[in-house]
Amino acid sequence: MTTVTSAAPADAGALRPRRLGIDTHREPVVVLRADAPVCRAEGFEAHARVAVSDGSREIIATLDILRGAGDGLLAADEAGLSEAAWAMLAPVATTRLRFRHAPPSDSMSHVRAKIFGHALGETPLRAIIDDVVAQRLSNVEITAFLVACATGDMSAAETTALTRAMIHSGERLSWSQPLVVDKHCIGGLPGNRTTPIVVPIVTALGLIMPKTSSRAITSPAGTADTVATFTRVDLDRETLRRVVEAEGGCMAWGGAMHLSPADDLLIRVERLLEIDSEAQLVASVLSKKAAAGSTHVVIDIPVGPSAKVRSLDEARHLLAALRTTADAIGLQLAGLISDGTQPVGRGIGPALEAHDVIAVLQRRSEAPADLRERALAVAAAVVELGGLAQGEAAHTLVRAVLEDGRAWRKFEAICLAQGGLREPGVAPLTWPLPAARAGVVSAIDNRLLARAAKLAGAPHAPTAGLRLAVRLGDSIEAGQPLFVLHAEHQGELEYARDFIASHPALVHVEAAR
Amino acid sequence: MTTVTSAAPADAGALRPRRLGIDTHREPVVVLRADAPVCRAEGFEAHARVAVSDGSREIIATLDILRGAGDGLLAADEAGLSEAAWAMLAPVATTRLRFRHAPPSDSMSHVRAKIFGHALGETPLRAIIDDVVAQRLSNVEITAFLVACATGDMSAAETTALTRAMIHSGERLSWSQPLVVDKHCIGGLPGNRTTPIVVPIVTALGLIMPKTSSRAITSPAGTADTVATFTRVDLDRETLRRVVEAEGGCMAWGGAMHLSPADDLLIRVERLLEIDSEAQLVASVLSKKAAAGSTHVVIDIPVGPSAKVRSLDEARHLLAALRTTADAIGLQLAGLISDGTQPVGRGIGPALEAHDVIAVLQRRSEAPADLRERALAVAAAVVELGGLAQGEAAHTLVRAVLEDGRAWRKFEAICLAQGGLREPGVAPLTWPLPAARAGVVSAIDNRLLARAAKLAGAPHAPTAGLRLAVRLGDSIEAGQPLFVLHAEHQGELEYARDFIASHPALVHVEAAR
Repeated sequence: MTTVTSAAPADAGALRPRRLGIDTHREPVVVLRADAPVCRAEGFEAHARVAVSDGSREIIATLDILRGAGDGLLAADEAGLSEAAWAMLAPVATTRLRFRHAPPSDSMSHVRAKIFGHALGETPLRAIIDDVVAQRLSNVEITAFLVACATGDMSAAETTALTRAMIHSGERLSWSQPLVVDKHCIGGLPGNRTTPIVVPIVTALGLIMPKTSSRAITSPAGTADTVATFTRVDLDRETLRRVVEAEGGCMAWGGAMHLSPADDLLIRVERLLEIDSEAQLVASVLSKKAAAGSTHVVIDIPVGPSAKVRSLDEARHLLAALRTTADAIGLQLAGLISDGTQPVGRGIGPALEAHDVIAVLQRRSEAPADLRERALAVAAAVVELGGLAQGEAAHTLVRAVLEDGRAWRKFEAICLAQGGLREPGVAPLTWPLPAARAGVVSAIDNRLLARAAKLAGAPHAPTAGLRLAVRLGDSIEAGQPLFVLHAEHQGELEYARDFIASHPALVHVEAAR
Repeated sequence: MTTVTSAAPADAGALRPRRLGIDTHREPVVVLRADAPVCRAEGFEAHARVAVSDGSREIIATLDILRGAGDGLLAADEAGLSEAAWAMLAPVATTRLRFRHAPPSDSMSHVRAKIFGHALGETPLRAIIDDVVAQRLSNVEITAFLVACATGDMSAAETTALTRAMIHSGERLSWSQPLVVDKHCIGGLPGNRTTPIVVPIVTALGLIMPKTSSRAITSPAGTADTVATFTRVDLDRETLRRVVEAEGGCMAWGGAMHLSPADDLLIRVERLLEIDSEAQLVASVLSKKAAAGSTHVVIDIPVGPSAKVRSLDEARHLLAALRTTADAIGLQLAGLISDGTQPVGRGIGPALEAHDVIAVLQRRSEAPADLRERALAVAAAVVELGGLAQGEAAHTLVRAVLEDGRAWRKFEAICLAQGGLREPGVAPLTWPLPAARAGVVSAIDNRLLARAAKLAGAPHAPTAGLRLAVRLGDSIEAGQPLFVLHAEHQGELEYARDFIASHPALVHVEAAR
């Protein structure tokens, strides 16, 4: 018997994976040499969508093509992988990759249907959202979906279907209690850190509030960043459940729970475009709450010229849309429209905000009154929605819990259950910005202030950020500090100072007449 | 006097450009190391839009960030550039690059306005199109524009404004003659190479037809690819003008003329999404014609199940939209709706199509009758639109010019003026596909056929492609060839054969009863 060996080895078209280390904003990208036989064979062009297989797993990636000048980057038998592609394929030493044109995408057919005016039901929306979560869509394709939804107007039914699809795309928490409360603030207000005050107040009153929060995406601090400066936040599901069973609530980072995982991926692309349509916002907020197992949710919408929502009309419209979808998915929702004209509290940055929170809970004289009053208003709304008391009685109830120390003791207990309570740190470097002239503080730009805090190092440097020394309407002398920068590194302090020097509109002082 | 030297050199933040050789589909991309001080200072994240300056020029690019694993890719003082970024900055040895956040884009404000339901006038559309041409918009941003237009519906006024903006974005040709004719075929039909037959016919009759054509984008051959197999097509403006003055017409590649340069960039992104909205199609076709200085244009729309336009209704709707905008910009337009159910002629691929064209012009017996008749129909429509004759008389006129050899002599004269006429080549490798059974040819899939021709090497291998041996309705024997593959390289012949083997629906033979 003669063994016939094929002239071409079985793996002739297969390439060795090479980690390029390039972060392409979570989009899997592969780089192939233009002279790779597979490029010719498949007729690949730059930005083609290609299926990459290691024999067991297959991912869809965007193709970049390496031209002559870059030949040194890849050997003839190598394929380059971006960080996202590398993470998804997790290649080992013996991995060999094969490439073909990505099969036609069902979800992109649905996106095209939406582009050309057809309403999408829950089944096509699920197909799209599931592909987003599996990272089978490129940023260009996700953009097409988001823009088609924003331009084509989403009906209430479509918004609800999108919300359901997003809930379905991830894990869900479930609780044995029939009434589980939650709160959410439609962002844009630096320092508005009410959650770590509201949770102990309402759980001290017997409500169940298994609060999960996010880390900052664009802001100087997310609630999880702030809480992480005084206790552990990266709880696994079992620990989270144990804390809630023991204390009625928690203050955990939601990232490990995989609740509505499509949300982060969509938000990243929305940020590239600076669009945030109402339907996406409703689906984003409500899918996270429903996936967390909440039954009753208070939504706080701060309104102000440099807040996310800029007018009362816009806030009312958004609240109506939230309510319609909340009703449809069986969530009880109460809205609070609040003042968003200036930052809340004094600190902006993880630890700086934590100090404000703890001062309020410990009823210290220097505690920022505005943060305390906002937290009490939210807590009262939660208590009302939870059916414990209504109107003035709800406000009296929550204030009593804060003032008699029950909230502080509950806060300590939750932190201990989560792994211990520690004092938030203090930055080694500070620099005060003196007022250029005497007058009255007439405007504070939330967005520029947030940017200054980020340049100073927040949130990756937890004690960095800034501490406001004035509020709107304050009369000040020339040279009196407007705020104090906090930083952990000299370089970052300098970056923030340079930024402040070139942005005098950050805090506006109207000359006294 | 003491000279004080700053501790930090002036160029501390500047980086040396490094060509990565990566083709990112014409989007300028820069890669910075995560540990580059400028990333921290500016708070850059992956896929941020950054302004890159060499001190004199500034481009806008998309940022990729190099994480630890890829540190070897770039030295600490280097920034990596994609091919598009490299071409735009054209750095020299001493170039040092500085980076900052891209300034807010006016054109993206207009795109957001369109997303949120506002109609766009010519001024905002010009801002967008000019930014597309200057490559100041990312593929994600161009996607947002295209999808907003497709989803939001473009009024006739918006389509016209878009067409004007696209004309304005590039160069324009102008002619001293008051009547300048042109033709355009709304693509999708392999082998439909009427242009090199129509140009000599109508110019022999005294009309002015300075035809510029494109190379293939997705098809196995563009008109310019076919013409390039028998004469020179990359004429500069002066040569083109001289040829037209001498002969009344030309068959040139339009790429060097910079006519409506936004078009190619938009089409590349539309292809990623497989969308092609009517407004974009109208603006694409008419802007190129107007920029070429045409006054009278015949539009041929083949209709068929695997053509670009799939129904008569769709063709009529498109023609009405084309006419509205043509009227508004002062173009005379005539439409031809034609049969698009099967390829035209026998050859598919640059040289194979050229042989068909030359056979028709030389009145050879083997010349494909369908190509001849289609070319005559288009030429008659051009002659009618040009006012030389109407109805049957126009058809008689163009047939006479072809049949008495005037068209062939004019073809020779134009080719000589363009730089000489040569015989198109013949591929060294051929392989016939035998019919699996006897019967009647009942369907031919234009798209699959085009793909097979491309795998065989067309258009980069000019003699590659395929030559059909049958047409719809032909009765055939088992084993009789359906078509013959032509290739320049054994490997490409194999790729095409493999593809054909796995796509039996390419040519459908209905068993004889």
